[in-house]
Amino acid sequence: MDYFSRQKNTNIRLTLPVVCFVWQIAMIILFGVFIRYDEESDTHWVETKAHDNITSDIENDFYFRYPSFQDVHVMIFVGFGFLMTFLKRYSFGAVGFNFLIASFGLQWALLMQGWFHSLDPQTGKIFIGVESLINADFCVAGCLIAYGAVLGKVSPVQLLVMTLFGVTLFAVEEYIILNLLHARDAGGSMVIHTFGGYYGLTISWVLYRPNLHQSKRMQGSVYHSDIFAMIGTLFLWMFWPSFNSAITDHGDGQHRAVINTYLCLASTVLTTVAISSLSQKTGKLDMVHIQNSTLAGGVALGTAAEFMISPYGALIVGFFCGIISTMGYIFISPFLEKTLKIQDTCGIHNLHAMPGVIGGIVGAITAAAASESVYGKLINTFDFTGDFKDRTVLTQGGYQAAGMCVSIVFGVVGGAIVGSILKLPIWGDPADENCFDDEVYWEVSEPESIPPILEYNNHMIHKQQDLSESNFSVEHCES
Amino acid sequence: MDYFSRQKNTNIRLTLPVVCFVWQIAMIILFGVFIRYDEESDTHWVETKAHDNITSDIENDFYFRYPSFQDVHVMIFVGFGFLMTFLKRYSFGAVGFNFLIASFGLQWALLMQGWFHSLDPQTGKIFIGVESLINADFCVAGCLIAYGAVLGKVSPVQLLVMTLFGVTLFAVEEYIILNLLHARDAGGSMVIHTFGGYYGLTISWVLYRPNLHQSKRMQGSVYHSDIFAMIGTLFLWMFWPSFNSAITDHGDGQHRAVINTYLCLASTVLTTVAISSLSQKTGKLDMVHIQNSTLAGGVALGTAAEFMISPYGALIVGFFCGIISTMGYIFISPFLEKTLKIQDTCGIHNLHAMPGVIGGIVGAITAAAASESVYGKLINTFDFTGDFKDRTVLTQGGYQAAGMCVSIVFGVVGGAIVGSILKLPIWGDPADENCFDDEVYWEVSEPESIPPILEYNNHMIHKQQDLSESNFSVEHCES
Amino acid sequence: MDYFSRQKNTNIRLTLPVVCFVWQIAMIILFGVFIRYDEESDTHWVETKAHDNITSDIENDFYFRYPSFQDVHVMIFVGFGFLMTFLKRYSFGAVGFNFLIASFGLQWALLMQGWFHSLDPQTGKIFIGVESLINADFCVAGCLIAYGAVLGKVSPVQLLVMTLFGVTLFAVEEYIILNLLHARDAGGSMVIHTFGGYYGLTISWVLYRPNLHQSKRMQGSVYHSDIFAMIGTLFLWMFWPSFNSAITDHGDGQHRAVINTYLCLASTVLTTVAISSLSQKTGKLDMVHIQNSTLAGGVALGTAAEFMISPYGALIVGFFCGIISTMGYIFISPFLEKTLKIQDTCGIHNLHAMPGVIGGIVGAITAAAASESVYGKLINTFDFTGDFKDRTVLTQGGYQAAGMCVSIVFGVVGGAIVGSILKLPIWGDPADENCFDDEVYWEVSEPESIPPILEYNNHMIHKQQDLSESNFSVEHCES
Repeated sequence: MDYFSRQKNTNIRLTLPVVCFVWQIAMIILFGVFIRYDEESDTHWVETKAHDNITSDIENDFYFRYPSFQDVHVMIFVGFGFLMTFLKRYSFGAVGFNFLIASFGLQWALLMQGWFHSLDPQTGKIFIGVESLINADFCVAGCLIAYGAVLGKVSPVQLLVMTLFGVTLFAVEEYIILNLLHARDAGGSMVIHTFGGYYGLTISWVLYRPNLHQSKRMQGSVYHSDIFAMIGTLFLWMFWPSFNSAITDHGDGQHRAVINTYLCLASTVLTTVAISSLSQKTGKLDMVHIQNSTLAGGVALGTAAEFMISPYGALIVGFFCGIISTMGYIFISPFLEKTLKIQDTCGIHNLHAMPGVIGGIVGAITAAAASESVYGKLINTFDFTGDFKDRTVLTQGGYQAAGMCVSIVFGVVGGAIVGSILKLPIWGDPADENCFDDEVYWEVSEPESIPPILEYNNHMIHKQQDLSESNFSVEHCES
Repeated sequence: MDYFSRQKNTNIRLTLPVVCFVWQIAMIILFGVFIRYDEESDTHWVETKAHDNITSDIENDFYFRYPSFQDVHVMIFVGFGFLMTFLKRYSFGAVGFNFLIASFGLQWALLMQGWFHSLDPQTGKIFIGVESLINADFCVAGCLIAYGAVLGKVSPVQLLVMTLFGVTLFAVEEYIILNLLHARDAGGSMVIHTFGGYYGLTISWVLYRPNLHQSKRMQGSVYHSDIFAMIGTLFLWMFWPSFNSAITDHGDGQHRAVINTYLCLASTVLTTVAISSLSQKTGKLDMVHIQNSTLAGGVALGTAAEFMISPYGALIVGFFCGIISTMGYIFISPFLEKTLKIQDTCGIHNLHAMPGVIGGIVGAITAAAASESVYGKLINTFDFTGDFKDRTVLTQGGYQAAGMCVSIVFGVVGGAIVGSILKLPIWGDPADENCFDDEVYWEVSEPESIPPILEYNNHMIHKQQDLSESNFSVEHCES
Repeated sequence: MDYFSRQKNTNIRLTLPVVCFVWQIAMIILFGVFIRYDEESDTHWVETKAHDNITSDIENDFYFRYPSFQDVHVMIFVGFGFLMTFLKRYSFGAVGFNFLIASFGLQWALLMQGWFHSLDPQTGKIFIGVESLINADFCVAGCLIAYGAVLGKVSPVQLLVMTLFGVTLFAVEEYIILNLLHARDAGGSMVIHTFGGYYGLTISWVLYRPNLHQSKRMQGSVYHSDIFAMIGTLFLWMFWPSFNSAITDHGDGQHRAVINTYLCLASTVLTTVAISSLSQKTGKLDMVHIQNSTLAGGVALGTAAEFMISPYGALIVGFFCGIISTMGYIFISPFLEKTLKIQDTCGIHNLHAMPGVIGGIVGAITAAAASESVYGKLINTFDFTGDFKDRTVLTQGGYQAAGMCVSIVFGVVGGAIVGSILKLPIWGDPADENCFDDEVYWEVSEPESIPPILEYNNHMIHKQQDLSESNFSVEHCES
C-alpha cells in the first residue's frame, strides 16, 4: 500500500464516499420532485380500468415485459460484470465496479430519459413503469460498454463521472435518434452499442498510457478467470433475444425479434470458432474470441431484429459478424493500440463499436427494402403516424443511416470532452505499473495458491539460502 | 480422517442416511394423505372454466406467477448457496448443504403452510399450485438465513433438524402474523428475514464455541471464493424485485413492488460502497460489504414494497440500509462476537435481522400513513374485508408493528429451544479446529494449487532437509 | 505443442474451419429455401386476428412459452456446459465445445424437426415460432447428453459430426414416437434422455481407449472445478420444471408439469445424499453424486410430468431415482468400464440413460392407469383425436412402452454407426495421454497457481539441485 501511494495517490477514501453520498442524495431529491408510479403500477389501476375481472390485470404491461426485463437485468449485472472478469487479478474490479456504476447509472437514466421522453407537460412529472426500468438498464449498458475499454486503468471515481456524463449524452442522442429522426432501434445497435463503443474508445484514446507495458504481468488471464468470464458470455448470449425484444411491440414484434436474434447468434458462434481456429498454427481456439466475438451477432441485429429480415437474413448477419469481430481481435486491436494509441482492454471495438455500425447499416437497408407485401400495413412496425405519416420506407432508411451518424458523433465528441475531464489529476487513478490490479482499490485476501506445506517450503528455502550463501537478490523475485 | 475422528466423532454415515430416508418416506406418506393439485393445475381446469377458448388458459395463475417463481427459485438455490461460498474451503458445504436443506425444507413447508393456511375443511386436503411453491421457497429462505449464522460450525444432520423446526416455527408465526393479526408482509421483512435472522443468531449463541480461533486458518476468503460469492450476491440482488412481488396482488401490486425494490436496491449499493470505502485507511473497498450489505435494501422493503411508498421513499430506505448494514459489519459484528458471544459466520445480523426489523418499522409507518387520496380504495391493498372490514390504517400500522414483535419472539425463543436440542452430543458436529473445513463432510480432491513441478519441490526439500539436519518440527507446518 | 503433434496429429486448423463454414453456409441456403416466420411472429399477426385490442397480443403463444424457453436455453448452455466443467483441466472444452455444438445443432434441428413435423404441404415451407425454438433446444439436449460420455476424448470436429447425425436421428425417432406411435413425451424421458444416453454410450463403446489410464493425471476434479460444476447442476435442477413443462398444454398442463417436477427433484436430492453418505467409510459426501444424481428425478419425470401422477407419485419417482442413480455411480459405472468397455466420462448412464428408461416405464404405467374420474375428458391430456380417437388408455400405455424401445434402438444402432465413422483417423482426436487436457485444442494461459514467490522457489531449487548433485530425473517430474 505504501508502495503504491509513494508512486501515485490512489487514495479514494474522501472522493469516493463524497461522490456516492452527494449523488445518492441528489437522486432522492430529484426523484421526490419528478418521479411517480405510472398508471399501471398505481393502486388506482383497477379503478382506471373500471372493471375488476382478471382480464384487466393480465393486460397490465408488467406481464408483457417483466420476464424480458429480468433477462436484461441479468445481462447488465452478471453478463457485463462477469464478461470482464477474464483478467487474472481484476475480477473484483470487473464485477464490483460494474455493479456500482450500473446501480448509479440506472437512477440517473430514469431521470434523464424521463425528462426527454416522458415528462408529462401537465403535471411536470415522470411516470415510470416496467418499460422505464428496461430503458434505464439499456442506458446503463452503454456506459458499461465504455467501461470495457478502460477496464483496469481508471479509478471508481472516474467511472462514476464517466457514467454520469455517459447517461446524459445517451439520453440526448437517444432523443434525437428515436424521437426527432424517428429511427427505429429497439435493440440499440446504434443508440447503445455504437454510442457506447465510441464513447469508451475515445475516452481510452484521451487517457492513453504510453507506459502501460509496466503492468504487463497483470494483463492476460488465468485458467479460472477465463471460466468466470464464460459465465458472463453465456448469460449475455442466451438472454440477447430478450434484450432485442424487450421493448418491441407486443405480440408478433417481440416474437420475431426473439427468433431473429436467436438464429443470428447461433450463426455467429460457428464463424467465430472457424476464424479463431484459423488464426493459430495448430488450429487451437482462443478464449478471447469465444468470450467476445460470439456475441457480435446480437449487437448487429439490435436495429433489425424486429424487422422482417427473415430467418436466413438473420443467419447471414451472424455469419459475417462472427468473422469480422474475430478478425478485429486478431488484426484491428493491435493496430488500434500501436497506430492510433487506443488501448482497448476488452476489445469493445470488435464486440460493440464495429458490430453496432454494421447493425445500423443492416437496419437502414432492411428498412429501405421494406414493402407492404412483406410487412402488411407498415404502420405497425415503423410507426408511421402523426408527424411521420407521409414517410416512405426509403426515407426511413435514410433517417436510420442518419441516426447511426448521430450516435457516432455523440460517442466521439462526448468521449473527447469527458476524457479530458478524466485526465485531471484529482481522480485517484492508478500508476501504469499498478493497472489491472485489484490490490489498488480492494482489500484482497492472501493468494489462495499457497497451501500450508508450501509456506513451509518458503520457510525452508530461506534457511537454506543463508546456508548456501546464495547471491539471490530481490530483482529475481520481481520477475 | 483418522486425525479428525480421534478428536471428535464426525462420522455421519448412520445418522445422515437414516434421517434422509425416514423424512423422505414420511413426506411421501403425508403427501399421499394430504396434498392434491389445485383447481388450476388439475385436468378438470378446462371444464371448470366451462369455456375452451385460449383466454381461459391465460387466466391460469401459472402465467401470473411462474416467471417470478423461477426467479425466487434461483435466489434460494444459487443465490443463498453461492453467497455462502466465500470461505476458502467451505464452498462444497455452502452450496451442497444449502441444496440439501432447501430440498427437504420445501416439502415440509408445503405441508405445514398447507395445514395452517389452505387446508380444505370439507375434503381435509391441501390443494397446491404455483403460489404454494413460491410460499414453500419463501419458508425455506428463513432457514437458509439461519444457516448463514452457523455456516461451517454444524453438521448436515444438525442442519436438517434446524430446518425441520425452522419450517414448523415459520408456518406458525406466519399464520399468526398474516392471518390472525392480518398484517401485510408480501416480501417477508418480518416473516422471513427477521424471524430467520434471530432464529439463526440465537442458535449460534446457544452453540457458542469459545475456541473457534483454533480454526482461524480456515476463516476468511481467497480470491476466487470471493468471486464465486459474487454470483450469489448478484442473483439475489437482481431477482429481489421478483421476491418482493412474487405473491403480491396481480397487476399494479406486482408492478409496483418491482419498481420499489429495484430502486431501493440501487440506492443501497451506493451507500454501501461509500461506507465501505470510508472504513479503510486508503479508501479500499471490502468484498464482505459488497457481497452482503448491497442486499439489505431488498430485505428492508419486504413489507412495504407493495405499498405506495413512492419511488423516492424506496430510495431513502435503501440509502439508510446500505449505511446501517455496512456499519453493522464494521462495528456490530465484532461486538456481538466479543460481548454477546454470538458467532455469526455470514453476518446475517447485518444482512437480514437488522434490515428485517427496519423493514417491519417502515411497513408499519407506511401502512399507518396510508390515505384514500393516495391509494384509492384501501381495500385493494390492505384487504380490509371480512373480519377486518372496520380496520383503519392506524390500527393496521399497529398490527404491523405487533407482527414484527411476533417474528422476533418466535426467532429468539424458537432458536433457544432448537439450539439446546442441537447441543446434544449426538449430531456429529466438527471440533473447533475443524470448523469451516469441507474435509470433514466431503470427499475433497487434492488441492489444485500444486502443479507437478512444485510437488517435486516438496520432494527435493525433504531430501535436503535431511542433508542439512534441519530442526524443523511439525508445529511449523501447522501454522 | 510439438510434443503433442509428434504423438498424434491433433491439428484441426483445416478441418474445423472448413466444417464450420461449409455447414453454416448450408444452413443459410436451407433456411432461405425452407424457413419462414409463423403466423404469430409475422407482421400480419394483427390483421390475421382481425382485431387490434391488447387481448389479441396476449394470446400470442410467445407469452405462454417464452419464459420457459429462456429457462430451457439456460439449461442447454449454462446447465449442460458447466455441469461438465468438473474436470481439472477440461473446463474450456466443456463450456466451449458445448457452446459450439449446441449452436450448430439448433439450426440443423429447426430444419430436421421442421421437415418431419411441420412442413406445410401447400407452400413447402417450415413456419417457426417460439415452440420451434424450444424443440430445437430439446433436440440439441440429446446431443449434449451424448457429449457427456465422450467428454475429453474427442476433437471438436468429431463433436460436430456426432451432432449432425445425432440431430438427424433424433428428428426421425421423435417423429416415430410422437407422431406415428402417438406416445406422449413432453419432457423427453424417452425421446431426449434415453436416446441421447444410449447414443453417447454406444459411441463411447466404439471409441473405447484401452490405454486411457495414461491420462490419469488429468482425470478427476480440483476444488474450484467442482464448484463450477455446481453452477451447471443448480441451473439444470432449478429450471427442470420449465424443461418438462415448456411444450405441454397451456394452462393446467404446464402448471401440473411444474409441480410434479419440482417435487420429484426435491425428493431426489434427499435420497442421493443418503446413498452418497452411505457409500463412504465415514459418511462423507461425494461431489460427483451431488452434481449428477440429484438431477435424475427430472429425467425420470420427463414423460409423466404432465400426467395426473399426483404429488406423492412424483415424490416416489424422485425417491427411487436418487437411489438408483447414485448406486449407478458407485457400482454400475465401474462395471461398465471394466466389463463392457464403456468409458463414460460424466456418467450419463446414471444421469440420463437409466433414469430415462425409468421415465419411459413410469409414463407407460401412468398412462395405462389413467381414468376419466381422475383426468376428466382424457382427450385433453392424451390428445385422442383424429386417427387416434378410438385409442384406450391401456393401448396408450403399450404405445408408450413401444416408444421407449424405439428410442433405445435408435440410440444404440445410431451410436454404433456414428461411432464407426468417428473411428476414422481423420478427425484429429487426442492421443490417450492427452485426453482431458484443454492444451490440445485451446490456447491455455499459464497455470495460475504459481505466485511470484514460488517461481523463485523453483529457481532456487534448481540451483541447489546442482549444488547437491541430486540424481533427480525427468520421470519424477512427470509423476
